[in-house]
Amino acid sequence: MAEKTLEDLFLDTVKDIYFAERQVLKALPKMARAAQSEELKAAFEKHRDETETHVERLQQVFELLGKPARGKTCEAIQGIIAEGEEITEAFKGSSALDAGLISSAQAVEHYEITRYGTLRTWALQLGMKDAAALFEQTLGEESATDEALSSLANTSSNSRAKTKAA
Amino acid sequence: MAEKTLEDLFLDTVKDIYFAERQVLKALPKMARAAQSEELKAAFEKHRDETETHVERLQQVFELLGKPARGKTCEAIQGIIAEGEEITEAFKGSSALDAGLISSAQAVEHYEITRYGTLRTWALQLGMKDAAALFEQTLGEESATDEALSSLANTSSNSRAKTKAA
Repeated sequence: MAEKTLEDLFLDTVKDIYFAERQVLKALPKMARAAQSEELKAAFEKHRDETETHVERLQQVFELLGKPARGKTCEAIQGIIAEGEEITEAFKGSSALDAGLISSAQAVEHYEITRYGTLRTWALQLGMKDAAALFEQTLGEESATDEALSSLANTSSNSRAKTKAA
Repeated sequence: MAEKTLEDLFLDTVKDIYFAERQVLKALPKMARAAQSEELKAAFEKHRDETETHVERLQQVFELLGKPARGKTCEAIQGIIAEGEEITEAFKGSSALDAGLISSAQAVEHYEITRYGTLRTWALQLGMKDAAALFEQTLGEESATDEALSSLANTSSNSRAKTKAA
């Protein structure tokens, strides 16, 4: 068996994030329905649309690699989403629900940010400039979503939770 | 049953990251042993020592809350660490192993970064300035570790993998 290379690691990680993005695509509409504030609902809906594009970009990367677009079970995203679902269930009807949803969504964003950052680095090292550019675009959108969520956490949702809790 | 509040969400999340940090404390020595480059070994060993301090800071937060220091199973970190272990196993002896270890460690860092960021925001909203300062300190160290790992990914480990793969 040939020694595994950075190309193998790259393909494994593309499969990992492809699985993850499709799980996120299923989770976001549930999070939008659960959200109490209209702003947070809108943020989740917007990010759901972006996530569709992220899935398509990954399909383009598979094409560049000449490989079929296939995911590989990503236990990390499963764990992150499962925790989010537990919070949604436990805080249903609570004024702190939105704060919990934001926190869960930011954990998802950070997982994606770390993976796309790694993939961009590897793509450049492997001379795959087109793939690196696709990762760069998605990375920018994930980071922007994370910042928008931080801003929501600092204002509406949590402040309301604090007021009700006081 | 009283409505759940931001205080409940805060305590749940402190328990989550307390569990996570202790899992990371166990994982880092294994990652240091697996690492091929001396620089990466040293980075993992340094971060292991920092992680001990992060656990102690969380114990201080439990004290501030007047609660026993108890973790709560964190499926997210379990998934992230499990993926890292799979990579370590699959890329044993490969020149791309260090690149995989760095990628796994950055996924861990990003999970911690998102959780501490959230906890700092909530601590401020709950008027817990001392707790917020503790989270802030840890957050700075996690971010610095993430940057150091990015820098290693850009230089030694992956470049070597690339050369061997070429």
